[in-house]
Amino acid sequence: MRLGELARLLDCRCDGDEGIEITGFASLEAAGPGDLSYWADRRRAAQAAETGASALIVGMDAPVFARAEDLGPPLAWLRSGEPALAAAAAIERLRPAWRPMPGIHPSASIHPTAVLGPRCHVGAFVAIGEGCRIGADAVLHPHAVLYPDVMAGDRLLLHAHAVVREGSRLGDDVILQPGAVVGGDGFGFVRRGDGTHAKVPQVGTVQIGDRVELQANACVDRGSLDATRIGAGCKVDNLSQIAHNCHLEENVVLCAQVGLAGSTEVGAGALLAGQAGVAGHCKIGAGAIVTAQSGTHGDLEPGKMYSGSPAFDHAQWLRATAAFSRLGDLQRELRELRQALKKLERR
Amino acid sequence: MRLGELARLLDCRCDGDEGIEITGFASLEAAGPGDLSYWADRRRAAQAAETGASALIVGMDAPVFARAEDLGPPLAWLRSGEPALAAAAAIERLRPAWRPMPGIHPSASIHPTAVLGPRCHVGAFVAIGEGCRIGADAVLHPHAVLYPDVMAGDRLLLHAHAVVREGSRLGDDVILQPGAVVGGDGFGFVRRGDGTHAKVPQVGTVQIGDRVELQANACVDRGSLDATRIGAGCKVDNLSQIAHNCHLEENVVLCAQVGLAGSTEVGAGALLAGQAGVAGHCKIGAGAIVTAQSGTHGDLEPGKMYSGSPAFDHAQWLRATAAFSRLGDLQRELRELRQALKKLERR
Amino acid sequence: MRLGELARLLDCRCDGDEGIEITGFASLEAAGPGDLSYWADRRRAAQAAETGASALIVGMDAPVFARAEDLGPPLAWLRSGEPALAAAAAIERLRPAWRPMPGIHPSASIHPTAVLGPRCHVGAFVAIGEGCRIGADAVLHPHAVLYPDVMAGDRLLLHAHAVVREGSRLGDDVILQPGAVVGGDGFGFVRRGDGTHAKVPQVGTVQIGDRVELQANACVDRGSLDATRIGAGCKVDNLSQIAHNCHLEENVVLCAQVGLAGSTEVGAGALLAGQAGVAGHCKIGAGAIVTAQSGTHGDLEPGKMYSGSPAFDHAQWLRATAAFSRLGDLQRELRELRQALKKLERR
Repeated sequence: MRLGELARLLDCRCDGDEGIEITGFASLEAAGPGDLSYWADRRRAAQAAETGASALIVGMDAPVFARAEDLGPPLAWLRSGEPALAAAAAIERLRPAWRPMPGIHPSASIHPTAVLGPRCHVGAFVAIGEGCRIGADAVLHPHAVLYPDVMAGDRLLLHAHAVVREGSRLGDDVILQPGAVVGGDGFGFVRRGDGTHAKVPQVGTVQIGDRVELQANACVDRGSLDATRIGAGCKVDNLSQIAHNCHLEENVVLCAQVGLAGSTEVGAGALLAGQAGVAGHCKIGAGAIVTAQSGTHGDLEPGKMYSGSPAFDHAQWLRATAAFSRLGDLQRELRELRQALKKLERR
Repeated sequence: MRLGELARLLDCRCDGDEGIEITGFASLEAAGPGDLSYWADRRRAAQAAETGASALIVGMDAPVFARAEDLGPPLAWLRSGEPALAAAAAIERLRPAWRPMPGIHPSASIHPTAVLGPRCHVGAFVAIGEGCRIGADAVLHPHAVLYPDVMAGDRLLLHAHAVVREGSRLGDDVILQPGAVVGGDGFGFVRRGDGTHAKVPQVGTVQIGDRVELQANACVDRGSLDATRIGAGCKVDNLSQIAHNCHLEENVVLCAQVGLAGSTEVGAGALLAGQAGVAGHCKIGAGAIVTAQSGTHGDLEPGKMYSGSPAFDHAQWLRATAAFSRLGDLQRELRELRQALKKLERR
Repeated sequence: MRLGELARLLDCRCDGDEGIEITGFASLEAAGPGDLSYWADRRRAAQAAETGASALIVGMDAPVFARAEDLGPPLAWLRSGEPALAAAAAIERLRPAWRPMPGIHPSASIHPTAVLGPRCHVGAFVAIGEGCRIGADAVLHPHAVLYPDVMAGDRLLLHAHAVVREGSRLGDDVILQPGAVVGGDGFGFVRRGDGTHAKVPQVGTVQIGDRVELQANACVDRGSLDATRIGAGCKVDNLSQIAHNCHLEENVVLCAQVGLAGSTEVGAGALLAGQAGVAGHCKIGAGAIVTAQSGTHGDLEPGKMYSGSPAFDHAQWLRATAAFSRLGDLQRELRELRQALKKLERR
């Protein structure tokens, strides 16, 4: 595709030769003639100057520079007010991800009462239980498992070994990466007087909104009586844990290995960075940010950034941790001060 | 079922109309006429007052209140000395979890030498290896895998993609949620002089006691030479890790994403909260509590509560963390104090 | 096998009766007559003195002791300069792990274009996609899944439910424990102005070197455009997370539940202990050690040991954490000091 046409598709301004033929998209380092690439991080100016790409997606205010000599014709620039979005769209266009063709593998086990929409791909050894209903254009990779009575919208994408347990409800454009589990039993037990635990039956469900992605081996437990709810647009990274009765509003982001204990409520657009944790029954305000490895057993206000375990204001935490690394010294200074004071008192 | 009959089954005292017909169990918020519900948390008195339920399970000393007007006939009360246990039993009775019927799916692969007890359910694509023996009333959901020579007691419940590797021993009433792994190789390597690592063959087994539940994607590694042992009644939440040669006594509770390094010993009834960790070869005393995100590389005494990474006495940790959030200020105060003292010394 | 022959095979010096017949290998506690065992930890001298083993592998300088009376004939000693390596080799010889025979299970689904080397074992319900090429002597346990176009070297060992997504490249002697996932989509999204997120297509691959082992439910995401690279000899424990575009050099060790965010670079031989975390785009120097539950959002120097979250010099951290447990007291002392100083100033 000519660069000029691509510029129009991506809503970019083309600074350079619109006639360049673009055939691929690659990183600054890997790009060669015919490739489009993307440069946003100014610390990577050297890599941009040495790229073999034919054109770069950049921001409106990205500085122009001279490409290193002998790397071919001058770089063309596609300038965008949203360069990261433009790059994502360009990748989708120029390097489409592999996707299996519609069709049902003969080894799949689909209950006769299950209903699949048109153009679905069902891979080897997929198991679809009684009464399931899946929308159009689904892709179920080998070994995906739907327990009975699962309902899902259009364009469901289940990778290998993804599991959705009975009665779960999934919206449109839901993606489960390999090994993700929806609807496992919540961790609900009652301790008896003798120290043993009675299992509290976990008979609620899971409701997952449109455009939710759960990545590899992430777990969303079913509610104990009602539903665990994941709002539209939430993104959950690998190995994260969402316990029973949690309620995530829209567009929440959980990075890898985050853990939410039972009945946590997370406001819209909140972001929990890697390995962060939230104790049960807490409310995380909309747009709050919890930094990596932080944890809270209390509510967090909307729009603020929190750090530490237990977490508090991020800026205050930065000061505290700076002091913490000197804590051995502080302790010594305090002792010296005390001795100096004693000496002074004796005078 | 009439409320009076239910009261007798649950060993509760019925305060109210014994003749009410109870047809379901629901949360305070979701309950309607005919539903039983459960109220324990006094902070949720408003929800209890507004419930549409016909009857509530409560403690012996729970306060009586007037239900909000126009919500139907007066609430009946089932009073119990163990209301949480009574509620669990009521849910089991009134909202039985879905359970597949006995029978063997034609796609299952069962080695001819494997022996299954009566009334088992074996789902699609289940693989059962040579020499396995499983007791009565097992439910093996689609894609459960037993390697050869696994022995399990009665009422085994394996969810989709649960894996039990060769030679493992499981007691009665063991539950594995989706993706749980029993018997993976331990992380045993010997570093050579050139920086590479030789694998130490992991040829031990796993012994899992009665009533153990491992939740989704949890991992229990096989012992290196002997067995990794999980005592009766242990409950292990999602994504937790139990390394080779660990020994958990009875009724240990590991919340989500807890990690135990190799050869850890955990005493009966100990509880490790979410994302807690224990380094190798430590002994956690019976009944000890390790709070969320805490970690220890030393032994912990029985019956005490520990926090922090590294963990120490919980009450002391509460004071330390309270001071920690002020550590930037403390450092500044110390500096001011030193200057004031210097001034004083110069006088 | 006679002990003398074993000594020669293991390159050990035999102190004792070379004619003893050795038939097995067991731990100090479990060993009986005919067993070889291994003693390295001097704190376990009592167990060594009471072992029922016929011979012990020990270091060159391990102290000789008298075995407890009535435990049979005197212990023979196999002395080695590398006793742990000798023990690993002895276990491999004397207690070989179970391994299925070559052959292809009739239920396996192998695409006609896939090419398997000689002597492979392919278990029940294994799915191998279009264009895959696997070397000789592979073992694919039930339910392993290879997406299309996966290339792997010789002696590939995939346990149940291991998944390798499209286009991944694996070297020789790669091991995936149950549920490990290679090539899941990276966590790449661009936030739009309205708070929703656009998915950045993840079209890179994964390159895994020789002798890499990924343990149960560990996750290695595919690169966004290029490859996520795991160098030869890396060992990754259960439930660890390696994000898109990471690059691990050779012989890196990630213990259980470690998390690496995107584009992390880890130098050769570095070791991250359990639940450690690294933020995106950091460089961990070769041979660096990050202790358990520690985390860094900055680069770490080669060969040094780091602790804390955020992590700094380990020795300094030891002093800081020792002071931290007394932080409540320090705060009180500081207050008292301030009051004493004020009193003094007033004099």
